[in-house]
Amino acid sequence: MNVLIIGLGLIGGSMALDIKANNKDAKIIGYDANDAHMEEALALGFIDEKGVFEDVAKADVVIVSIPVNAAIEVLPKVLDIVKEDTLVFDVGSTKANICNTLENHPNRRNFLAAHPIAGTEFSGPKAAIRELYKDKTNIVCEVEKTAFKLQERAFKIFNDLGMRIRYMEPKAHDRHIAYVSHLSHISSFMLGKTVIDKEKNERDIFDMAGSGFESTVRLAKSSPAMWSPIFEHNKENVIETLEEYIANLQKFKKLMQEDDFDAIYQEMAETNRIKEILKGISIKTS
Amino acid sequence: MNVLIIGLGLIGGSMALDIKANNKDAKIIGYDANDAHMEEALALGFIDEKGVFEDVAKADVVIVSIPVNAAIEVLPKVLDIVKEDTLVFDVGSTKANICNTLENHPNRRNFLAAHPIAGTEFSGPKAAIRELYKDKTNIVCEVEKTAFKLQERAFKIFNDLGMRIRYMEPKAHDRHIAYVSHLSHISSFMLGKTVIDKEKNERDIFDMAGSGFESTVRLAKSSPAMWSPIFEHNKENVIETLEEYIANLQKFKKLMQEDDFDAIYQEMAETNRIKEILKGISIKTS
Repeated sequence: MNVLIIGLGLIGGSMALDIKANNKDAKIIGYDANDAHMEEALALGFIDEKGVFEDVAKADVVIVSIPVNAAIEVLPKVLDIVKEDTLVFDVGSTKANICNTLENHPNRRNFLAAHPIAGTEFSGPKAAIRELYKDKTNIVCEVEKTAFKLQERAFKIFNDLGMRIRYMEPKAHDRHIAYVSHLSHISSFMLGKTVIDKEKNERDIFDMAGSGFESTVRLAKSSPAMWSPIFEHNKENVIETLEEYIANLQKFKKLMQEDDFDAIYQEMAETNRIKEILKGISIKTS
Repeated sequence: MNVLIIGLGLIGGSMALDIKANNKDAKIIGYDANDAHMEEALALGFIDEKGVFEDVAKADVVIVSIPVNAAIEVLPKVLDIVKEDTLVFDVGSTKANICNTLENHPNRRNFLAAHPIAGTEFSGPKAAIRELYKDKTNIVCEVEKTAFKLQERAFKIFNDLGMRIRYMEPKAHDRHIAYVSHLSHISSFMLGKTVIDKEKNERDIFDMAGSGFESTVRLAKSSPAMWSPIFEHNKENVIETLEEYIANLQKFKKLMQEDDFDAIYQEMAETNRIKEILKGISIKTS
């Protein structure tokens, strides 16, 4: 099996590591617009050789793991030159734009739209790790538009990676993911910004930071090159979640200004329900 | 050494565990307004016996580890009946109110104002763990107001717990901690609330949540009984941080509405500096 991975960062690299481990006969070709990334991937050993874009034409599987703005440029070009029985899948964090872009492509049936919900706050080839996808959820959109044999090949790969599949309509995917992923990133980035802005004059602040701050601000380490296009692609949904989030913060502030700490207690007690919800997530992922 | 711990939750309980391990001759008496907590603490073995409030009069050390609103009620009563050479310290997350309340107490010199910056999102006696305080920062306020011999006794305990000491003025403490601790909690609680509100109609959301959401929302598991009084005590500072946070979120939203994703990229790239800052924290605590 010839696997071409376009984009050798955390996501593509981690996939390469596991596919290599699971398929002794797989040959992994890596292509990245950044030559240094190809060299690193080769040195780290998760690709067998450096490739060129035209290697698409001889691949059995093409994985497109690049920022979503680049993906909508690259995916049509990939589909233009694939073999009839080549599987192409993406791993982007937004799905509606990508599915719309490819809707009428003559080779649409070679493509499967996926979003493996896995990652860390790190990026680049060195961030790639084994078993990143184990017990994680993979959202697959418009599965019925992919050729049956190629669905099968994709699910074999996802199964080997240890993922569970959820099927979803692209618009529903984008709306839901705005809440549980995109908003978390903005809340974390803006928390980091607020504290850093203050710190310019107040050097002592970070000496007082504990593990609570550390975990809440963790996502603010994430790659702007990945996240800025995600926010762009999911603009309407993200703005809606931001408005709801800001309204909740303003309500909290108003309760404080009115000294209504009973109501504040109540807000927090109700939100404590997140414990049970997260326990659900942990059970799923353990 | 007779140690009386008033308040047998995560903070008092974890302190009891380590003090017991470090001082074989220490007798730990536990007092809690909630009798079930005393029974639990006894069963868990981190107190030697259940006490009554009046045990203050025979203690060498009194640790007041209760929510800050209760602490300002209880601390003056403790100081009313202490022996001349009894050390009393608190562990509250706000310091100005507590220091003001005790400012003119005739036994002010028996008291040391402390804030060990340590904790987890869990609460109650069962949440108590060994080495919670190891390599953490302990902020001590108005140290000069505590009798020299009792300072020494306190620092011996803090040293045994593995903490590093930072001295700070109570108002500066409250202003700084609002940024790195109190705001993180509100941002996390409101994130949890925003997503839970949505989830009422959209059951699928949490199936899509990954580890990013989990870490950002972790603090929303925290105890309202502890945190509502902290926000009340640090009202002005917390409102100020909230205003700055909301303004940053609104600016982010505006940039999105104006499709200025270059500026959004820039905002995130600048905030990535948090990596270096957090590395500093990790080095400190490792």
